[in-house]
Amino acid sequence: MKYNNGDIVKVHTKEEIYEGILMPRPEIFDENYKVIKLDNGYNIGIENKKITKIEVIKKYEKKKEEGHRMSYKSGLPKISILHTGGTIASRVDYRSGGVVAAFSPEEIVSMFPELAEIANIDSELIANMWSDDLRFSHFKLIAKAIEKKAKEGIDGIIIGIGTDNLAVASAALAFIIQQTPIPIIFTGAQRSSDRGSSDAAMNLICAAEFIAKTDFAGVAVCMHENTDDKTCAILPPAKTRKLHSSRRDAFKPVNDTLIARVNITRVDGNPRKIEFIKESYAKKDKNRKLIINPNMEEKVGLLKITVNMFPKQFEFFKGYKGLVIEGTGLGHTPGHAPNELANIHKKIFPAIKKVIDSGCVLVMTTTCLFGRVEMQVYSKGRDLLKLGIIPGEDMLPETAFVKLAWLLGNYKKEEVKELIGKNLRGEISERVV
Amino acid sequence: MKYNNGDIVKVHTKEEIYEGILMPRPEIFDENYKVIKLDNGYNIGIENKKITKIEVIKKYEKKKEEGHRMSYKSGLPKISILHTGGTIASRVDYRSGGVVAAFSPEEIVSMFPELAEIANIDSELIANMWSDDLRFSHFKLIAKAIEKKAKEGIDGIIIGIGTDNLAVASAALAFIIQQTPIPIIFTGAQRSSDRGSSDAAMNLICAAEFIAKTDFAGVAVCMHENTDDKTCAILPPAKTRKLHSSRRDAFKPVNDTLIARVNITRVDGNPRKIEFIKESYAKKDKNRKLIINPNMEEKVGLLKITVNMFPKQFEFFKGYKGLVIEGTGLGHTPGHAPNELANIHKKIFPAIKKVIDSGCVLVMTTTCLFGRVEMQVYSKGRDLLKLGIIPGEDMLPETAFVKLAWLLGNYKKEEVKELIGKNLRGEISERVV
Repeated sequence: MKYNNGDIVKVHTKEEIYEGILMPRPEIFDENYKVIKLDNGYNIGIENKKITKIEVIKKYEKKKEEGHRMSYKSGLPKISILHTGGTIASRVDYRSGGVVAAFSPEEIVSMFPELAEIANIDSELIANMWSDDLRFSHFKLIAKAIEKKAKEGIDGIIIGIGTDNLAVASAALAFIIQQTPIPIIFTGAQRSSDRGSSDAAMNLICAAEFIAKTDFAGVAVCMHENTDDKTCAILPPAKTRKLHSSRRDAFKPVNDTLIARVNITRVDGNPRKIEFIKESYAKKDKNRKLIINPNMEEKVGLLKITVNMFPKQFEFFKGYKGLVIEGTGLGHTPGHAPNELANIHKKIFPAIKKVIDSGCVLVMTTTCLFGRVEMQVYSKGRDLLKLGIIPGEDMLPETAFVKLAWLLGNYKKEEVKELIGKNLRGEISERVV
Repeated sequence: MKYNNGDIVKVHTKEEIYEGILMPRPEIFDENYKVIKLDNGYNIGIENKKITKIEVIKKYEKKKEEGHRMSYKSGLPKISILHTGGTIASRVDYRSGGVVAAFSPEEIVSMFPELAEIANIDSELIANMWSDDLRFSHFKLIAKAIEKKAKEGIDGIIIGIGTDNLAVASAALAFIIQQTPIPIIFTGAQRSSDRGSSDAAMNLICAAEFIAKTDFAGVAVCMHENTDDKTCAILPPAKTRKLHSSRRDAFKPVNDTLIARVNITRVDGNPRKIEFIKESYAKKDKNRKLIINPNMEEKVGLLKITVNMFPKQFEFFKGYKGLVIEGTGLGHTPGHAPNELANIHKKIFPAIKKVIDSGCVLVMTTTCLFGRVEMQVYSKGRDLLKLGIIPGEDMLPETAFVKLAWLLGNYKKEEVKELIGKNLRGEISERVV
């Protein structure tokens, strides 16, 4: 009998018989292995040459998704989960290999029954995409969905989104949502929901707990704080960065602290204790209006500085309305010619000037990520200031990028130049003198 | 009498008189203050409106640099300090404000007399530049200076360099120097040498100690491990990144550990204890030849991925020989059009294909910095693999960039595509299965 990925099989070797689901082309084993998902959830790789027989026990059948509606419980707050796709809404596709977004909102609610103990959950699929494909127009889409839900009198919103651009999206929405009476929490998962190590359930539950049990109103991120499954971090949206490609605790505050910590384990009989780290934050207020301003300028770029750059790499942005430079150290680019090997650098400041003269607003951030740009310290920085580049203080490059696009979409150029270096949403820390 | 920056002055207020050096336009105080550097090294800001009189005690005189030659001590190793400029060789210029590179090699030796107890120090200025202006040709210059010194039978080399691109330069030299009989240690300073908080002395001393007291041979970085002044970290050259714009402990290993730790404080009568963290490393061997291969391909780029990109940002690299993509998460770019808002993404894969078809080798790294790219996990990654993008494993984007340029300068294209994902100098960690 021909076997296919997803079938339940018995794999015979001389020594043993393994029963489980035949997995698709594995990611880390090579082609000389078959991989079987055992009943206990673990995968095992079996060398092809050791296999004597493969028996198909049960052919793979695509699961039928069943509708699911929560019954309304009085006394519990109403939380809307707005899903945009990403790993939090995905499972391994046993046919194609790899992870695919396979998601219906009712299914998510049925997958995480604990949510029903915390709140009356309503969920909606507003997009189904990997966050890598997010554009500014999608931030507007998310903002409009938030607006619609808020008008329905919901108590809080969870945005499920792919982790690759989760932090950037939360930063963009922090600018777009000028004020909010309710909490809007971005969450996602680094491991897909069908894996034992998935962080999807805990991140969702912590986000719901944080909405239900605290007076916080504003935009924030909720993700695993550590590699254990004990706490989730509630993170400031414009100061958070994904700093690991695969770990569940990939999201860290940069030049900032957590807003709060949600304990998922019951400590001293205290279920899910929430500790605030930040003392000052906007509080829930049903009388506060939701103000949304989703315009963003499309022609904005981000240029990362390296050694050995060419003037054309700068000139490319002529005609752009905004450009964030991810400079070295305290906010530097090449541009001096201290010796003849660097003669080409004589054309870099003129190239930057051309970009500025074309009407582009240039903002400097640091590729160090941590720390602040200080463009007065070295002659290089001072020369860049003279050209008209504006220091981005201690903003993350990605935050400066969405902030610049948002400012350019809503303010006059001279106002943008004034506001980019001012703290609007916690994206710039106070300078410690 | 008219006062100028650099003059020794007495500043009178109603309450007190402050004597010290009048500092140039301060970086962090505003224009309403005068800043005086007191004898104890601290700066004090005095509000202009409180000042009743400024008396000039001594006009500023530019110091004459005096030559300095160490007398040879038998029994001590010979260490060459090759200076390329940067903060480690700089002081505040009291006239212009800010920091300038003002440096003579003899002066450096006289500034750090402890070095003479560790080794016979010889020093040479091979360039005088901020590291922001480094080009690949400067790496060749450094390599040639190393070669010259090694031929003179020196026991170890310290490269003094600006911190902005210190890590990148050490990575480049790790590839260029195919093997070495002696240690080559990159060091720098985050605070200029005339400041009380300067890390210049300790970093130089730890680098010299590490060369003099251990059997290590190879390229490494020596910088402060923590914010205290107790230990320096000896870091792997291709796995180190500057992760803070101003802190002295800005340099951290990424996806790796320290090579060793140099204690500068005397613990239990043990002066400057050196602890190795890595067990395996190349040992000193006078019979091993120094092999240097400094060719690097000039036309190599690095493209950082953001949300809202345009196909032209990819197409720009058509005709380049190499391009490192700093992708999101496990190694992704935009390129799918899951809804009509992302229609422009339909042109991104074709743009990437044009770049590849023009003869460019494309390598994927992650903007998360920590963790590995895994392009088999999601359909996005698999599509990028199909286009011909090569996974950069857990290499830092900046390391992948100089490695790709170095490979393209020395190998055929097919060999480059083979070698870029293989570990040559510790730049790729073994995969933990």
